[in-house]
Amino acid sequence: MMTELPLEQVRTLLAVVDEGTFDAAAVALHVTPSAVSQRVKALEQRTGRVLLQRTKPVRPTESGAVLVRYARQLARLERDAWGELGLSGTGEPTRVSVAVNADSLATWFLPALTRVAGLCFELHREDEDHTAALLREGLVMAAVTSSPDPVPGCTVRPLGRMRYLPVAAPGFITAHLDGRPMPEALSRAPVVAFDRKDDFQDGFARRLGGRPAGPFRHHVPTSEGFLDAVAAGLGWGLVPEVQAGPLLDRGRLALLTPGEYMDVTLHWQQWRLDSPALAALADAVTATAAETLRR
Amino acid sequence: MMTELPLEQVRTLLAVVDEGTFDAAAVALHVTPSAVSQRVKALEQRTGRVLLQRTKPVRPTESGAVLVRYARQLARLERDAWGELGLSGTGEPTRVSVAVNADSLATWFLPALTRVAGLCFELHREDEDHTAALLREGLVMAAVTSSPDPVPGCTVRPLGRMRYLPVAAPGFITAHLDGRPMPEALSRAPVVAFDRKDDFQDGFARRLGGRPAGPFRHHVPTSEGFLDAVAAGLGWGLVPEVQAGPLLDRGRLALLTPGEYMDVTLHWQQWRLDSPALAALADAVTATAAETLRR
Repeated sequence: MMTELPLEQVRTLLAVVDEGTFDAAAVALHVTPSAVSQRVKALEQRTGRVLLQRTKPVRPTESGAVLVRYARQLARLERDAWGELGLSGTGEPTRVSVAVNADSLATWFLPALTRVAGLCFELHREDEDHTAALLREGLVMAAVTSSPDPVPGCTVRPLGRMRYLPVAAPGFITAHLDGRPMPEALSRAPVVAFDRKDDFQDGFARRLGGRPAGPFRHHVPTSEGFLDAVAAGLGWGLVPEVQAGPLLDRGRLALLTPGEYMDVTLHWQQWRLDSPALAALADAVTATAAETLRR
Repeated sequence: MMTELPLEQVRTLLAVVDEGTFDAAAVALHVTPSAVSQRVKALEQRTGRVLLQRTKPVRPTESGAVLVRYARQLARLERDAWGELGLSGTGEPTRVSVAVNADSLATWFLPALTRVAGLCFELHREDEDHTAALLREGLVMAAVTSSPDPVPGCTVRPLGRMRYLPVAAPGFITAHLDGRPMPEALSRAPVVAFDRKDDFQDGFARRLGGRPAGPFRHHVPTSEGFLDAVAAGLGWGLVPEVQAGPLLDRGRLALLTPGEYMDVTLHWQQWRLDSPALAALADAVTATAAETLRR
């Protein structure tokens, strides 16, 4: 059935999702908004499914996401073919969209990208537990994930373990933890979390035998901001050892429970496509991860 | 009319929006999911408006957002009253949700927070052109915005100007810009942007008389990642002068067009509420901004 889908309609669907509105897609495709609307409707009739939620911006439905992924894979193959023929195609550079978690982006991921020449990167920052969803929706063609289970149509390779150390500013430890029984004190002390979804600190407190981390909880939704907030004494938190190391050495941070840590195993998932661009990126990412992450 | 709204129903609406689903709201409120559903329906009948989009997660409609903001303001007043009475209320710490742009969060904003004791911060990172929308939706009670126009129900204070310098790695300049006529070379060279919405670099290229920045465009959606990508030579970009300064001094970055820059004027907007917590935060933020930003 897939091969019978009219390409023009599939590409129009992709443009609407990428641009966010029917009007913007019309501008990008150099056609009228009513042509865009007719093509999407025709594709919905052909597939017998609603493909778009008419929100602002427009979002694909579950069925729509399948076609969007298909459209992106087609576009990728087409661009690779042009590239291999030594032709510039539409004059567009080879674009690779990747979902990556904030801590990887702040530590080891960018150096990997500089090892690959000639590609244009479109990075999406997302929690490592949720990057697989972006892959499933077809929004990205590769992702750093915590899940070792491949998304349908994707391959998986392990990258290594990222180690997190429980740390706080020395002044914070004096004020909130010193001389108090440990798991309980940790559960009651102010804590820094990435955002509302982040239960990593809770998991650590529970593993020590305490309750989830305290109700006094700051949300700082950037990797570097999280580190800065912990170093400034706003709360305790689990920080990647590569980020914590220099501050531990300079005495600006201290370990809460020496010998205790949390490890997150990271994986590289990408579309199962014979694409030279994706293959070059995968090699660079796995090589850089091997140098930086724990095995 | 507002005073006639049943508080229990309004609080239930807020819980559904905060928790994302009816089921999660039921758990948080210690009632059954069907009680949650009935309360929301009753409130919709009473107001004659649909208040929630039944998506996953649930989102408030425009009418729903008005009531969500109202519910949060009520909760804030209640908590402040408990705090002033020296009572801990429900045992919950005083929580302040703030929307802030990535570059402010990476540079001057966190030191402001450390000046305020006893508050729990919930930061939301958003482009400075879009933080006002979060304020309007009632998701946050204060925001750093680029717009000087107050959101309904909010007050505005100017914070100062953040200066952005057009920079690139010296090797990048040699490879892509040296010896070529300037506005045109800049428009064609690889460029780093924050995300798809970021047209700041385009605006700069246009102001020099060139076309929008080139099709070879990387997206790196964190402030520090953006800086790292530019320093690694992936493209040119506009970087806050406080971030660029140390790298310019060490020769890891160079100015593209000495004397040219882009300024963004930032504002502090917050709910028009007589809240000691918000007032203390506003004072700390405006004082820190005055020390860091340009007038």
